[in-house]
Amino acid sequence: MSEAFDAVDVIVAKRDRKELSDEQIRWVIDAYTRGTVADEQMSALAMAVLLNGMNRREIATWTAAMIASGDRMDFSGLSRPTADKHSTGGVGDKITLPLAPLVAVFGVAVPQLSGRGLGHTGGTLDKLESVAGWRADLSNEAMLAQLEEVGAVICAAGSGLAPADKKLYALRDVTGTVEAIPLIASSIMSKKIAEGTGALVLDVKVGSGAFMKNVEDARELARTMVDLGTDAGVKTVALLTDMSTPLGLTAGNALEVRESVEVLAGGGPADVVELTVRLAEEMLDAAGRGGQDVRAALTDGRAMDAWRAMIAAQGGDPDATLPVARETHVVNASADGMLTTLDAYAVGVAAWRLGAGRARKEDPVQAGSGIEMHAKPGDEVRAGEPLLTLHTDTPERFERALAALEGGIEIGAAAGERPELIIDRIA
Amino acid sequence: MSEAFDAVDVIVAKRDRKELSDEQIRWVIDAYTRGTVADEQMSALAMAVLLNGMNRREIATWTAAMIASGDRMDFSGLSRPTADKHSTGGVGDKITLPLAPLVAVFGVAVPQLSGRGLGHTGGTLDKLESVAGWRADLSNEAMLAQLEEVGAVICAAGSGLAPADKKLYALRDVTGTVEAIPLIASSIMSKKIAEGTGALVLDVKVGSGAFMKNVEDARELARTMVDLGTDAGVKTVALLTDMSTPLGLTAGNALEVRESVEVLAGGGPADVVELTVRLAEEMLDAAGRGGQDVRAALTDGRAMDAWRAMIAAQGGDPDATLPVARETHVVNASADGMLTTLDAYAVGVAAWRLGAGRARKEDPVQAGSGIEMHAKPGDEVRAGEPLLTLHTDTPERFERALAALEGGIEIGAAAGERPELIIDRIA
Repeated sequence: MSEAFDAVDVIVAKRDRKELSDEQIRWVIDAYTRGTVADEQMSALAMAVLLNGMNRREIATWTAAMIASGDRMDFSGLSRPTADKHSTGGVGDKITLPLAPLVAVFGVAVPQLSGRGLGHTGGTLDKLESVAGWRADLSNEAMLAQLEEVGAVICAAGSGLAPADKKLYALRDVTGTVEAIPLIASSIMSKKIAEGTGALVLDVKVGSGAFMKNVEDARELARTMVDLGTDAGVKTVALLTDMSTPLGLTAGNALEVRESVEVLAGGGPADVVELTVRLAEEMLDAAGRGGQDVRAALTDGRAMDAWRAMIAAQGGDPDATLPVARETHVVNASADGMLTTLDAYAVGVAAWRLGAGRARKEDPVQAGSGIEMHAKPGDEVRAGEPLLTLHTDTPERFERALAALEGGIEIGAAAGERPELIIDRIA
Repeated sequence: MSEAFDAVDVIVAKRDRKELSDEQIRWVIDAYTRGTVADEQMSALAMAVLLNGMNRREIATWTAAMIASGDRMDFSGLSRPTADKHSTGGVGDKITLPLAPLVAVFGVAVPQLSGRGLGHTGGTLDKLESVAGWRADLSNEAMLAQLEEVGAVICAAGSGLAPADKKLYALRDVTGTVEAIPLIASSIMSKKIAEGTGALVLDVKVGSGAFMKNVEDARELARTMVDLGTDAGVKTVALLTDMSTPLGLTAGNALEVRESVEVLAGGGPADVVELTVRLAEEMLDAAGRGGQDVRAALTDGRAMDAWRAMIAAQGGDPDATLPVARETHVVNASADGMLTTLDAYAVGVAAWRLGAGRARKEDPVQAGSGIEMHAKPGDEVRAGEPLLTLHTDTPERFERALAALEGGIEIGAAAGERPELIIDRIA
């Protein structure tokens, strides 16, 4: 087959800070998916995009080309509107677990296609797999049926959505080109748009435990994604939320499921409740069902009922005892005072090293391992009292986990300026 | 084998405008040669280098690492000093042919490892292969013997010199990363330093027919290469020379050999003679044999004797008739006036299309094809009189060659500012 463009010309154009035409972008994504554009050419282009950027039109075309590389799902046959949430990833971010059933209570279907964890941030599917019997893999038919009957589904994304993104993401991971805002935005949004949701709320994390370390980058990423969703006809809103310290009091798979169930039972840590409620309100608003008392559904059992139905529909036993790690190690406060820092990245890496996360895609995770926090920044602590409990099945891992925590915990005389949980909203 | 560094860390450092350490550079070149660093990683790094640059230390270490990837030659056993010349490539640039024997006349050995043409610039080996019987491939022993006995050798570079460069050059060619001055400089200089010459004169071409289109880029490239040579203990000088119009009155393989023999017989076009003499003086100076009457050796037959000995030593017959193309086509002047433009790139592409060059490495070239020029910029021309004669074995190529010349020839009322042949000298 004769090619419409030459890969070198496209790379050179972006290298020389020129705009790529829609035709060039469509061709290069298609040819890369077909294998006509080689990995070494795409990685050079990705580096040029990272360093020289793309404008709104280029990013929109790039995203549309990745969507066109695969299947699209269609929820238009459902009797309810759909709304989805995507988090850019953080430590202790179990929000999807209480959020999906909570939104379903109000007649909006939540098709939550999720991933597994890689690196220091956990994966929603890994967390739910600590529930006995629960299955992540559903057929499209089973997913649609569950959305209609239960109103919420959390499952693995099928391999047919945006295959160009899958190939490109794996390439970026080994070529130092992950941190390009146009490529991050198009990667996330191509999957979410192909998935066919009617409304989308983005939780863009900012801080040490997040991908975006500063508010300016996070705002640019959020703005880019909101533009992409809006241009594609998806009602899209983004919240910028704090990830300088973990969300809630647990980081780890079964530990986070337990905390999520506490929230669904009307309890749980204040920050997890606040973010869950706020995201649910945004999703309902975006789906045209706003103005309802969301918080009430957490305390009166309706959200818990939806959770139990959602877990049971995927083979899980909501009454099963959650796995517990074999060994624990307690870290005590070293002084009296106020906990001023509990660094999200340090806690994330420590939980990962304890066995909650994986270094390579093929690695297994330990369901019970992770970290319980007994205080959060702003809390008073006393020397010798427990600050953290580390959990693992493999106690030889404690040493490296403790090393990761070094410098991540600070106790001071008074509280510094604490960031707001919800930093900004971009619509 | 456990690796000292991670490829992504090296890429990210250069991407983020950090200096690479000597250890990182040595590792990445070695690991790329071994295949541990993949093509897609090296191309991302090459793009980051192209856009973010390298400093003098980084370029020197990069070059040394490419030299260390292969063999080094050693001319220290010769009874004469050595001097080499490298041209960055131009149209009608046959200077190596008269230059090597001319320098040999004065007791300096010229080990000229050359390449074949690719694209619109011709290759020295292709030109010499139009001499019946001449062989480009010599063993190291034969090369050393010829240098000692004849004083000049023009032959193919062995595959053992800087294999990392060979691999990297092929990668850059398909990934839009050819035009990075640090990478161009290290590619040229790694081969020249590994070759073991004691002195080196660089002919850095500037203009439409050259790789460097403007004087600033050419000066930066020349300065970078002179620094690299000097740091490696090679006495190195660079001339910046004009390539806005072809050198001499011929572009093509046998056509350029014929013109070179005219120069060795004391005739030939003034620009070819001027540049040959100047480069010979620079090479003799750099080799410690300066201050001699170089031009005299062209008119008294000594350079011709050295040429005949050099050709014969490699199996060639210096008295053989040169190949002539089957068909010719004359382009006449369209008006009376002064020839103001005869664009080097247009002539180079036209000669290439006539069969003098190759599109892919494996393609053959036509020995007789190319272009003869009957006027040069600054000459008066008359409407209807011959301006160019096109030569080819395959007359169906005339049309595309004529298309390449379109816009490349201008006849005006008066001469514009003509660039000097020798623009600058950098030592």
